[in-house]
This record gives sequence, structure tokens and C-alpha cells, in this order.
Amino acid sequence: MSAQRLPDPRILLGPGPSCVPPRVLEAMARAPVGYLDPELFEALEEIQVRLRTVFGTANPFTLALTGTGMAGMESCFANLVEPGDTVLIGVHGFFGERMVEIAGRYGAQVVRVDAPWGTPLNPAQIEEAAARADRLRLIACVHAETSTGVRQPLEPIAEIARRHNALFLVDAVTSLGGLPVEIDRIGIDACYSATQKCMGCPPGLAPLTVSERALERAAARTSRVVSWYYDWKLLANYWGGDHMYHHTVPVSLLIAFRESLRMIQEEGLEARYARHQNVSRLLMEGVAQMGMQPFAQEGYRLPTLNALHLPAGAEDVTVRRRLLTEYGIEIGGGLGALKGKVWRIGTMGESASIRNVSLLLAALKAALA
Amino acid sequence: MSAQRLPDPRILLGPGPSCVPPRVLEAMARAPVGYLDPELFEALEEIQVRLRTVFGTANPFTLALTGTGMAGMESCFANLVEPGDTVLIGVHGFFGERMVEIAGRYGAQVVRVDAPWGTPLNPAQIEEAAARADRLRLIACVHAETSTGVRQPLEPIAEIARRHNALFLVDAVTSLGGLPVEIDRIGIDACYSATQKCMGCPPGLAPLTVSERALERAAARTSRVVSWYYDWKLLANYWGGDHMYHHTVPVSLLIAFRESLRMIQEEGLEARYARHQNVSRLLMEGVAQMGMQPFAQEGYRLPTLNALHLPAGAEDVTVRRRLLTEYGIEIGGGLGALKGKVWRIGTMGESASIRNVSLLLAALKAALA
Repeated sequence: MSAQRLPDPRILLGPGPSCVPPRVLEAMARAPVGYLDPELFEALEEIQVRLRTVFGTANPFTLALTGTGMAGMESCFANLVEPGDTVLIGVHGFFGERMVEIAGRYGAQVVRVDAPWGTPLNPAQIEEAAARADRLRLIACVHAETSTGVRQPLEPIAEIARRHNALFLVDAVTSLGGLPVEIDRIGIDACYSATQKCMGCPPGLAPLTVSERALERAAARTSRVVSWYYDWKLLANYWGGDHMYHHTVPVSLLIAFRESLRMIQEEGLEARYARHQNVSRLLMEGVAQMGMQPFAQEGYRLPTLNALHLPAGAEDVTVRRRLLTEYGIEIGGGLGALKGKVWRIGTMGESASIRNVSLLLAALKAALA
Repeated sequence: MSAQRLPDPRILLGPGPSCVPPRVLEAMARAPVGYLDPELFEALEEIQVRLRTVFGTANPFTLALTGTGMAGMESCFANLVEPGDTVLIGVHGFFGERMVEIAGRYGAQVVRVDAPWGTPLNPAQIEEAAARADRLRLIACVHAETSTGVRQPLEPIAEIARRHNALFLVDAVTSLGGLPVEIDRIGIDACYSATQKCMGCPPGLAPLTVSERALERAAARTSRVVSWYYDWKLLANYWGGDHMYHHTVPVSLLIAFRESLRMIQEEGLEARYARHQNVSRLLMEGVAQMGMQPFAQEGYRLPTLNALHLPAGAEDVTVRRRLLTEYGIEIGGGLGALKGKVWRIGTMGESASIRNVSLLLAALKAALA
């Protein structure tokens, strides 16, 4: 333990956190204000307004939850599921598995529909499972599977959920701010994300939006929401209305997050999505020239998280350690069954720049030589 | 909504957050590192070692939970209570009420022992209730009631818990870092706090320590912990051992918190406690000269949170608004039944300085004139 040291700066090209713009770090470093300060209420209001634009929604209940993306996931199952409800979960990676685990803890009867990791879910299988399910309340899936780099088309699943009068829950942790999410156009009832991926902010908050329909279903519960900390009704009372005290929100992170949202809208959503696409394409062209193969199925590759098969003969940990110690670059290893088999290179938020990718390609070439 | 503005600096003398030293803000503003970065693991280890010193414990399971103090409270009931368990809660303020609410959500049979707000709990009543209780698993109370300014002596209640073979859970949100907590000496099985009160850090983390005995009881549960996000077993696997991925921890806050802990140990715990005592005494002498009466019973007043009856004729909101807008000073109003009846003046962490209290006294005199 070396006293007084602070971490070296990193170029974060892993699965998140990603790099944070200096302007956001400076906003975070302002002296904090109280949780009932008019200045904070102004920030909360601005966060809600700007978040609605990024989510593509008019949902009044749109806010940033205290906790990371996984807290967002937990809050959705905690509020939307009652013991005995049937929940259909599409699993095409590690985070779909997480949904199964958490839904089960909240008492759901989970019906899972699996797709091989690296491919998207098959809507026909989801339709079939939905048709067979009893008391189907919710269909859930991950938009951007951080474990595999797969982008899941959401429209067909939204359509199935509507037809079966089920709510549709989407994990947008690795998509929000990096590619369109479009809550209202697609018809998503609940969606959570994280601040540290494509939103350009440190980790610690989970952007969340919930439709009126989903809030009505939650309000009609016959059992209490077990989690007090993530009970949406209590959070709504603090974020809106009379700002009734619930918990002391993480003011510094919220001020930072407001600044990220300002920067996102200054850049423009379309320009931001195009930047993610371009930087990811540059990366994939570069690694292809080095003989590396993408893991995710063509046509379904995320511009934010690029999963690659390890090149023949490369030692996972050795290469990643060299990148980190010699170049200060972080890339991610494989999760779960993909450990030692893939690398996950994030091109998200502030990290998604030509400069970062050019350096990474040079460093990878040296480390693999 | 005014674009690009950041909050004005405040002198935070409310119930928290309190002021944060520039050094801690600067540490927080460092570029973040990944959640598996060796630099972060070093910080996690240092946080654990230093936190044990502040808590006065050798408990291996000592860490900073993602979430605020209330998340700490929730995690304790989530892990320690199974449906049907009897939990005895001493209620002498707003946060004791919170415990009752949360324990109930996790299925506890709650036995409550109340004391009038402004006084501590009566151990004889707790003993009586414990003797009558069936399947008593846990006794819980708040060490420093933020709503009333009362310091609860813990030894007698610890002794009762031991005698009845129940676990002892303590809320140290408004005490840790400002007055001694002494987990091991007193015999406390689980204790949580918050970073934004006496610890000199922004809000967003909940320091937590749990005894081996309590962990064993949690491990022997017959039902799963409903909360996945706050499941101690999973958190222990990330903070220790192989650092198995659980969620992306809020790295910036953790780096800030390590810096706070360094500053606390540089000051020295005894010197820090003495500073809180001295500054609180100065404040109480000053307000006494202005004719204001303390709310909490003599002999049980916290040095960190000073609750006062409103002076006759003073308009709660008007005075607090003047302090905020004219002097940039925040003080707290009353919570729950005490709304409009008391002021709560925090002298915690970096906020606990002679300079701040001198200014507050001058400002109060002007605002009440």
C-alpha cells in the first residue's frame, strides 16, 4: 500500500467504465450541495429533461437511480415482479443470465429462451414461449450484450410483448448514448442503463425510464416492493412533487451526470451515434488486418462493444497486462464461458476516438509480435 | 434551466452531506480506472484496512457498499433477516422508524420499543421485550439519531443482545468518524454508515462492517437473500479473494473515499473526535446566548448533529432560506413530526470548524433580528 498515491490515468477500452471528459470530472469535483438544495433540484430537473431526449421518451418517470447498472436491473424486477408472476427472459449472454438470477430472487417463475452466445435472440422462439406461458407479466432482454458484443433488434420482441399484454423490459447498459434506444417508438415499458459506458460519466448512477403502463401495473401490486431503497414510488416522490426525503442522493455524481448530458446534446445524438459507428469500424478493420475475427454474428455487431476471438497463440492475460502496464490501455477479457477465449474492446463515450483506437492497434501489434 | 451553470459553493451545516476537503474532491476528479484494475484493487485493500481502524474492528468483512447510508441499512436487513424472524428495533427517531419499515419489507416480525424523540432508548424496556420475544434473531438501533441529535449508549443493548443470543445491528450514519463507534469492544455484529457525514467524502458509499458470527448466521439462511445487488456473499467475492466481477463499483467515489480515510488517520481519531466535541460546544454556547434551547436530552447530545428548538417567533423556512441565499449556509429543518419545530445543525467532518460555526452564529443573529 503506497501512501498518498492516486491512480495513473488509463485509456479505458474495456467493457466499462470508459474515459470521462475533463469537463465532467471538473463538474464532479465542485463542492457538493445538500440533497434539498434548490441548486440540486434544478440539476435533477435538467437531468430528467435531457435523459428523456436520450432515451427517446416522454415518460415522466425518467431519472438516475443511485447505484450502477445492475441496480437498475434489480430495481426493475423488484418493482415489476410479484411472487408467482411468469417472466420470459431472452438469454444470449452473461447479462441475460443475470436477469434470470435476479428475477428468480424476486419470486418470478422464469421462462428462459436461449440463443447461442454471439447471436441475437430468435423472435419465433420467444413468440412460441410467450404463447405457452401462463400469467405472463413481463418479457425482458438485453439490447447490447456486453459479454458478446451482440446488438439485439428490439422491435420484434416489443411486438410480441404487446400482443401478449406483457410489459417489455430492456437492458440498455451498453447502448444508451452510443446507439439509438428509442423507448417510445419501439414500445419499451422499462429500461435502465449505466452512466459509465456510452454516457461519458463515472460509474454510480443508473439512468432509468418507466412507462405509465408499467407504473400502473406496479401500483396495482398486491404485495409490497421488498426493496425499500429501489421502490419507484418513493423515488418518484423525491425526484418530483414535493421532493420528499428518501435517501441522500449522490450529489457529486448527479452534477457530473448533468454535465455529461449537456455534452451529449451539444454533440448531438446523431453525430454521437455516427462517431461510435466510425470508431468501431476503424477498430474492426484494423484488427481484421491483424487476422483477428469478430465474435458476434455479422449484422448484429455493436458499435460500442467489440468482441474478438483471441488470435491463435495469444496469451490472454499476458497481452492484456502488457497493454495496461506499457501503454496504460485497458481492454476486457471474456466473461463466464468466454473467459480466455475473447477480448472485449469498448469504444464508448469519450473513449470512442480515432486517437484511442489508433494507439490500441499499434499497441496490440507490438504486444502480439 | 440555465445552461452550463454549476452549483455555488455551500457551507454545509445541515444533516449531511457535509463539506468535503479539496484534496478529496481532487482525488475524485482523477480519471477513473477499470473495476478490475490493479490500482483499484490496491485502493479497495487500503479502504478496508483503514475502515477497520475507524470502525474499531478486526472484522475481515469491512468495506464500502455502493449506495448511500440507507443502502447500508437495507443490506443489513436483507442479509440478516429471514421471513418470520423476530427483530427487536429500538425507535427513538425517524431512522429507527425507517428500520421498522425496511425490516418489515424483508418479512421480519418486528417488535418495537419506543422512546420519546429527544431521549435515548431505555435498556430495561428492551430487556423486557427481548425476554418476551419468540425466535429473536436481531436487536437493532440507531447510534446517532440524525432526526433528534440524540446519542444512544450502545453497551447496555449489546449486553442484552448477547444474553439473548441475538445479533446486534447499529446505524452509525451520523457517528462514524465523528465519535467513537468501537465495534469489537462493544460487541456489535453489523454496522453501517455513510461517507457524506463525518467521513469527509461526498455521498454515494456506505461503509459497512459485519462480524464473523453474523456472517455465519447469514450463511446458514434457508432462504436466498432477495437482493442480489446487496448480497454480502457476492460482494465479499469481489472485494476479496479473486475479485470476482459483481457490479462496476463507483471507482471515482472509492478513490475519493480512500483519500478521506487517509486524511482521517493523518488527523488522528482522538484529535478528530475532540474537534467535533469542541466545535459542537462552541455552537451550543453561541445559540444558548441567543436564547435557543437544545432539543436532545442533556448527557445524550451528539457532537455531530445539534438539534435545537426553533426560537419563539422564528419562521423556519424563511430563516433557512435567508441563511442559504445570503450566506450560502445550509442548516436542516425538522424531519417527520419535528417539521417546523427544530433545526438540525450538523458539525460533521470538514464542516466541523470554528470558522464555519462563527459565521453561522453571526448569520443566525442577523437572520433572526
